[in-house]
Amino acid sequence: MTIWLQRLRKAHSRVKHYAFHTPVWKDTFIDAQWDAKVFFKCEQFQPIGAFKLRGASNFCMQLSDEQKARGIVTHSSGNHAQAIAYMAHKMGMKAWVVMPENANRVKVENARRWGAEVHFCEPTIEDRIRTADTIAGNHGAIIIPPFEHSWIVEGQATAAMELIADVPDLDIIVAPLGGGGLLAGSALAAHYLSPNTRVIGAEPTQAADGYEGFISGNRVESFKPDTIADGLRTTVGCVPFPIIQELVEDIWLAEEDAIKAWMYRYWRETRTLIETSSAVPMAALDAHKEELAGKRIGIILTGGNVDMTQLP
Amino acid sequence: MTIWLQRLRKAHSRVKHYAFHTPVWKDTFIDAQWDAKVFFKCEQFQPIGAFKLRGASNFCMQLSDEQKARGIVTHSSGNHAQAIAYMAHKMGMKAWVVMPENANRVKVENARRWGAEVHFCEPTIEDRIRTADTIAGNHGAIIIPPFEHSWIVEGQATAAMELIADVPDLDIIVAPLGGGGLLAGSALAAHYLSPNTRVIGAEPTQAADGYEGFISGNRVESFKPDTIADGLRTTVGCVPFPIIQELVEDIWLAEEDAIKAWMYRYWRETRTLIETSSAVPMAALDAHKEELAGKRIGIILTGGNVDMTQLP
Repeated sequence: MTIWLQRLRKAHSRVKHYAFHTPVWKDTFIDAQWDAKVFFKCEQFQPIGAFKLRGASNFCMQLSDEQKARGIVTHSSGNHAQAIAYMAHKMGMKAWVVMPENANRVKVENARRWGAEVHFCEPTIEDRIRTADTIAGNHGAIIIPPFEHSWIVEGQATAAMELIADVPDLDIIVAPLGGGGLLAGSALAAHYLSPNTRVIGAEPTQAADGYEGFISGNRVESFKPDTIADGLRTTVGCVPFPIIQELVEDIWLAEEDAIKAWMYRYWRETRTLIETSSAVPMAALDAHKEELAGKRIGIILTGGNVDMTQLP
Repeated sequence: MTIWLQRLRKAHSRVKHYAFHTPVWKDTFIDAQWDAKVFFKCEQFQPIGAFKLRGASNFCMQLSDEQKARGIVTHSSGNHAQAIAYMAHKMGMKAWVVMPENANRVKVENARRWGAEVHFCEPTIEDRIRTADTIAGNHGAIIIPPFEHSWIVEGQATAAMELIADVPDLDIIVAPLGGGGLLAGSALAAHYLSPNTRVIGAEPTQAADGYEGFISGNRVESFKPDTIADGLRTTVGCVPFPIIQELVEDIWLAEEDAIKAWMYRYWRETRTLIETSSAVPMAALDAHKEELAGKRIGIILTGGNVDMTQLP
């Protein structure tokens, strides 16, 4: 398994050319509420406002010159789309992004602002993949999947790698679970670099395909989620699934009301914006408060792209 | 006048025990809009979410033991109240704060959370002062004014001192104008430490007592403001007024719609919260866009205490 550790280290050496080593934030009142020490890894401060730049940059930097010349395609609920648009802008590539018609408008506009061509589709994983495949076929462009590739998982792992380097002796790391790239990457990072740290996934009860698959051992392949956490409406992918199955200790669920309340609470306490998906770990942890006392807890905040005209 | 510079330096040596040296933020898209380099001094990241901790800490650290034992009183639209509550908590003092009945609820709750006793009054400077005087008389406590004292002005000056130290060769520094402590302090800091930097005040058109006084040369003593920028509803004080009159180049005005739009724009671009008052400089600058091209502009953001239940 040491081959994975080398791959993570190489990924970090690539990712750091584009993604910031984001700060770790502390809050007195949240610590007091759980009687714990909570360390927030603030991925909302990436240039695109989300961790997705890590996987996207790790992937794009491994493209051949011929692939770069043809351009890149992806499908995404929003943050990966922005990451692909940003990387295409920085590396001088053409980018097409397929986004579900119910995508957050700020994420759509940001993808366009970096020069990507946006195509809308039905909000199902099947239609997302079909639309992206058609565009890729028409233009001979390469598809950069949002989580279905080990290069993406390795890129997303770099957030937890930095957190572990900055904050020693974490008892728990919690990452939100959507497609599974961030959670699988965080679990790999902890496995090699902080083996005593438990890794927990956090998922909305109303998008609990990851939880169901984790409990049953069989990945849920199609699912219609209904959560305000727009970044977590995806189904867990077949690349992250076995890593999560092997290395993640548990998946904790979050109710919609708690997600909403924690998003505003975090805004108020820290004066920084997080999107709904980023509040899922706090909502899930709050439901397991009795296990937190005295613990050192790392929480990976996915991003801060909030559509102020569509607040929950 | 070098006596002022020594006082500013002493103030900074006190203030830094309690207030953070806050970061300076850049944003690609705002730079592009004005064809300028804009440096945001992020006072929303102070422990109380606002610059007011600077003046309050500079004042409190100069109290005698007897004064500390009797406790402290203030009147404030919100951020100074939080600063006084915070300092009282840290230094083991009793604190009473008088706040207008239309004060931002988050600021009221934060003052209470740090242990202060909150009293409400009419939203006029006369009633604020009268109520604070009564409480001070009843308890023998000392009043710490929000801006009517040189110790407060010197404390607030430390934000611009740090900005000037971090960002050389600024062409312009813009600070919001409410009671005048921050603007007067910023003007003093620039006068001694960066004499080629022009200092501009930014004020809502609907609370333009500072502008009127600046133009006429006579301080407006009573005024009924009607602006969403709750931190700037105060009348300019007699201590800051002559400093502003002598050292500030101009006061630029901001319309309510522009203040609101810039607040949300800043949230979206930076994923950090600023309150309405902090958006006043951007709204005022936008109305003078033709003067900004090629300039290096420092903007002091007052704070980020936003009541999410009362968004404009």
